[in-house]
Amino acid sequence: MTKNKGNDLYYISLNSMKRKEVQTMSRVFNFSAGPAVLPEEVLREAADEMLDYKGSGMSVMEMSHRSKVYDNIIKEAEKDLRELMNIPDNYKVLFLQGGASQQFSAVPMNLMKKGKAGYIVTGQWAKKALAEAKRYGDAVELASSADKTFSYIPDCSDLPITDDMDYVYICENNTIYGTKYKELPNTKGVDLVADVSSCFLSEPVDVTKYAVIYGGVQKNIGPAGVVIAIIREDLITDDCLEGTPTMLKYKTQADADSLYNTPPCYGIYICGKVFKWIKKMGGLSAMKEHNEKKAKILYDFLDESKMFKGTVVPKDRSLMNVPFVTGDKDLDAKFVEEATKAGFVNLKGHRTVGGMRASIYNAMPIEGVEKLVEFMKEFEKRN
Amino acid sequence: MTKNKGNDLYYISLNSMKRKEVQTMSRVFNFSAGPAVLPEEVLREAADEMLDYKGSGMSVMEMSHRSKVYDNIIKEAEKDLRELMNIPDNYKVLFLQGGASQQFSAVPMNLMKKGKAGYIVTGQWAKKALAEAKRYGDAVELASSADKTFSYIPDCSDLPITDDMDYVYICENNTIYGTKYKELPNTKGVDLVADVSSCFLSEPVDVTKYAVIYGGVQKNIGPAGVVIAIIREDLITDDCLEGTPTMLKYKTQADADSLYNTPPCYGIYICGKVFKWIKKMGGLSAMKEHNEKKAKILYDFLDESKMFKGTVVPKDRSLMNVPFVTGDKDLDAKFVEEATKAGFVNLKGHRTVGGMRASIYNAMPIEGVEKLVEFMKEFEKRN
Repeated sequence: MTKNKGNDLYYISLNSMKRKEVQTMSRVFNFSAGPAVLPEEVLREAADEMLDYKGSGMSVMEMSHRSKVYDNIIKEAEKDLRELMNIPDNYKVLFLQGGASQQFSAVPMNLMKKGKAGYIVTGQWAKKALAEAKRYGDAVELASSADKTFSYIPDCSDLPITDDMDYVYICENNTIYGTKYKELPNTKGVDLVADVSSCFLSEPVDVTKYAVIYGGVQKNIGPAGVVIAIIREDLITDDCLEGTPTMLKYKTQADADSLYNTPPCYGIYICGKVFKWIKKMGGLSAMKEHNEKKAKILYDFLDESKMFKGTVVPKDRSLMNVPFVTGDKDLDAKFVEEATKAGFVNLKGHRTVGGMRASIYNAMPIEGVEKLVEFMKEFEKRN
Repeated sequence: MTKNKGNDLYYISLNSMKRKEVQTMSRVFNFSAGPAVLPEEVLREAADEMLDYKGSGMSVMEMSHRSKVYDNIIKEAEKDLRELMNIPDNYKVLFLQGGASQQFSAVPMNLMKKGKAGYIVTGQWAKKALAEAKRYGDAVELASSADKTFSYIPDCSDLPITDDMDYVYICENNTIYGTKYKELPNTKGVDLVADVSSCFLSEPVDVTKYAVIYGGVQKNIGPAGVVIAIIREDLITDDCLEGTPTMLKYKTQADADSLYNTPPCYGIYICGKVFKWIKKMGGLSAMKEHNEKKAKILYDFLDESKMFKGTVVPKDRSLMNVPFVTGDKDLDAKFVEEATKAGFVNLKGHRTVGGMRASIYNAMPIEGVEKLVEFMKEFEKRN
């Protein structure tokens, strides 16, 4: 995919949005950290198909998960995801439920065969994952950036990783704090497990560098209630911790192609539409370009501004979540309030951090970031 | 709710369907066992709100689960459900994930405090629940109808239930076999846990007779991916089996009002719409009347027909799932094929039973059953 083609396609999409302006004038720019903005054309298609999916005479919500028509939906979603991420054949793709939080248990229950794992703590979610893993075995904190409110990614070039560890665990993009690993940790040959909830499909990824990649879809891919896990096949065994619920065993789901019981059918259908949208936009390389362009607009302004400051060490800045502050709580509140009125919504920072946060996932158009920066400039002048 | 009022309301709904016939002519009569038919007006509303929920400028799929607008959706859904089922204040309502299959583990993990429970096996789902419970403690089969392919409900008036049991477990309506408990078992004072997935909100229920009522919503209430559990408060404690995943502890979810992590927001929103639809139709008494009327049309025909036979003992017949056979596999297949062509879809029986099954949940209009019976009569004449 060349640079221009990706941009052109995105541009076409923006133009088609403009043509439909009468119907969509009430849409806001939604900077929610998740559930988050979805491509408008995906929502339009879903609305159009709500009463009759492609001549089936029913909504996707009403279909048996064992019907041919639904089988095509889930199979095609998997196929498109495999193509987008270039997932090798020796990895299974599972559509699961329970959010990342349920994986905090499922990961150790399935993978802690030797009883030991290392966790790198870069925020609240990695911390929660570690706490849960400690209930199942010897889960060790390898490094942490808690000393500076998780505003950076620790040096992971030479961590105390040992051969007796089953895996090393990271949260690759930290939604709350706005950091992202720009380079994967040196795991010294130990399997890497990554929660990618908030950077899923935001840029190309080398799946072979991971043992497990998983994430909730509700940030970059679809509606809350679906988790996608990409797992190297040799790790999917019956040898789970005793008492692992059948539904939490990867093998249960892998053997049944994610249809052991009724999956979250409608959510998977929306994910499938988003996969097709990303493909049309030019795939993950085009997404990366698009995301870098958007993030640059915002970070450049933060670096210039006398009022607004980014909170993250520049080298570890996330392309997806951009936290910033004015340094004055009242001014932060005023900004959020006025921005909301102007149609820039969900900019309030996470309750544990304060300030502001703009989440600019794949489906956020460049226009949204440009207009936000215009608004911020204007706000700065006035205050 | 008087008899007429309920019927009138339903009639209005049918009439309004007719007025919109041009748009809906492609809708089929969907007899799927689940995911299953939903009220057409619910789907229409969902389609209308897909790009902009009530002036929020976004889809419900795109909303933060911690936003005020979503909080109203989930709170109102709970309020309406409490009203419909007359749920006492000492019961919590939880919106969960993972299907009934995940509850097969969660129930013993949360409730087996003394380590023993009794299971009544009336079909595949109760059997699976028992098998899973055996992994966590002394789970005993109290009775079974396996001897006659689960075509009846065993006598539950004097089962070997003992004081040292934490609970007695039933699957109240058996989707695959078409049976339903018309009377709850005599549990001799032991707490009753019921999987009501396929009879949820189909008729009034006395919640106080249960310790836990739970079900997947994908049959009578909404899209797959949401489980509703109604649990007596005193059972919600930290005292779960060791190793219970945090996400599977009822207390985790109860303490956070089902917002411990991101819930399946969109599914809950659709459930909320269905609750409002049921209220408008006259509540659970009206639903029962409507369901009895539909079931009678079909059972009366099965009792008359020389070709089609119901497979269930009459006194235990479900109002929701009606299995039937011709006694000839080829003829069964021919019937299913021709019915599908005529717009009566998903009539094939479960793969473990064969024959046919018509699932006639709340949202199936009387017209659907009437026309099916007409078609069956005509098929019988021809063959």
